[in-house]
Amino acid sequence: MKLAIVGLGLMGGSFALDFRSIYPKSKIYGLDISKENQKHAMDLGLIDELIEIEKISTVDIVLVSIPVDKSLLILPKILDLICDDTLVFDVGSTKGPICKLLFDHPKRENFLATHPMAGTEFSGPYAAVKNLYFNKTNIICEKNKTNSKIFEKALKIFQLLNMNILYMNPDPHDVHVAYVSHLSHISSFMLGKTVIEKEKNEKNIFNLAGSGFESTVRLAKSSPETWTPIFLQNKKNLVIAIEEYISNLNNLKEIISKNNANGLSLILNNTNRIKEILTTTNIENEK
Amino acid sequence: MKLAIVGLGLMGGSFALDFRSIYPKSKIYGLDISKENQKHAMDLGLIDELIEIEKISTVDIVLVSIPVDKSLLILPKILDLICDDTLVFDVGSTKGPICKLLFDHPKRENFLATHPMAGTEFSGPYAAVKNLYFNKTNIICEKNKTNSKIFEKALKIFQLLNMNILYMNPDPHDVHVAYVSHLSHISSFMLGKTVIEKEKNEKNIFNLAGSGFESTVRLAKSSPETWTPIFLQNKKNLVIAIEEYISNLNNLKEIISKNNANGLSLILNNTNRIKEILTTTNIENEK
Repeated sequence: MKLAIVGLGLMGGSFALDFRSIYPKSKIYGLDISKENQKHAMDLGLIDELIEIEKISTVDIVLVSIPVDKSLLILPKILDLICDDTLVFDVGSTKGPICKLLFDHPKRENFLATHPMAGTEFSGPYAAVKNLYFNKTNIICEKNKTNSKIFEKALKIFQLLNMNILYMNPDPHDVHVAYVSHLSHISSFMLGKTVIEKEKNEKNIFNLAGSGFESTVRLAKSSPETWTPIFLQNKKNLVIAIEEYISNLNNLKEIISKNNANGLSLILNNTNRIKEILTTTNIENEK
Repeated sequence: MKLAIVGLGLMGGSFALDFRSIYPKSKIYGLDISKENQKHAMDLGLIDELIEIEKISTVDIVLVSIPVDKSLLILPKILDLICDDTLVFDVGSTKGPICKLLFDHPKRENFLATHPMAGTEFSGPYAAVKNLYFNKTNIICEKNKTNSKIFEKALKIFQLLNMNILYMNPDPHDVHVAYVSHLSHISSFMLGKTVIEKEKNEKNIFNLAGSGFESTVRLAKSSPETWTPIFLQNKKNLVIAIEEYISNLNNLKEIISKNNANGLSLILNNTNRIKEILTTTNIENEK
């Protein structure tokens, strides 16, 4: 099996590792806009060979793992170039814009829109890690717009990776990830910004950072190149999510200002439910 | 050496484990307002024996590890009861109120105000873990108000735990932790609340939770009994921190609304600095 990975960063590089573990005899090609990333991906053995975009017609599967604004530019071109039975899939965090763009593309049937709920705060080929995709949830949008034989090829890969498949339309997908993924990144980036602005003496102050701060601010280390276009593409949903978040913060601030211990305790207790919700989910994912 | 632990939860229980590892021959007593916690602490072997508050005069060291509102009620009473050379220290997350309260207590010299930057999102005796205190930062306030011999006793323990000692006055301490610790908890609790409110179908939606959401929302699992009084005692500083956080969120929302890619990318890039700051700190802490 021949796989080409367009974009050799965290998502593409990690997919190379996981794909090779389920298909050891496969040949993995790669390309990246950055010559340095290409070199690192070769040095690390993530890919076997570099490939030029014009040669992409020679492979069986194409993974597009680049920032979501760049996907809008390159995916139509890739679809123009591929063979009739080639699977092309992306792993972007927004699904509305790409599905709209490719809606009436002549090769729409070759494309599968996916969003694996997987990642870390790091980026680039050196961020690639084994098992990033194993046992994770993978959201698939507009399954029926993909040719069934080509879809089966993708599904087999995801099943071998033991992924938990969820089917969702692009618009509800973008609403839900605005809350469960994108807002987490916003809250973390703004926590980092607020603390950096306050604490001019970084050395002194960051000695104070316990594990709580570290985990809450972790996502603020994420790549701006990846996240800027995600936030902008999901602007409509994300702005509403941020407004609801701000409204909850304002409400809590008032409750604290008024020394309302009962009100405060009630909110914290209700929110503790996140513990059971996430535990249930984890147990079910492990099944 | 005889240690009494008042409050047998995460902080007290974990201290019992770490104290026993550095003083294997010590005798550890415990008491808790909850009979269940007392039983669990005995069952788990965290403590050797229960002790009544009236008998506290028989021990060498008293750790007070209870919610910060309860500390204000019990610490003066404990100081009234202890012997002249007993060390009493607390591990609360606010230092202003307790230092003010005990300012002119006749036994002020026996008390040391400390705040170890250590913890997890769990609570109760079963949350106790080994090595919670090892290699962590410990903030000590008003060192000079503690008798030097008694202070040395405390310092020896912290040094055996390889803690990184920082000296800070109570008021600056409370300002700094408002940002680096308390605001993290607020941002996490409100993220959890916003997502729970939006996502009525918990099962469906929490399948979407990737590791990013999990780490950002982790602190929302924390004990309301612990955190309600912390937020209220640090109200003055925390309200300002929340306002600055909201202001940054509003600003980012505007930038996203206006499709300002350059402005957004600049903010994310500047905030990425948190990566180097936290890495530097970790490396230095490991020295």
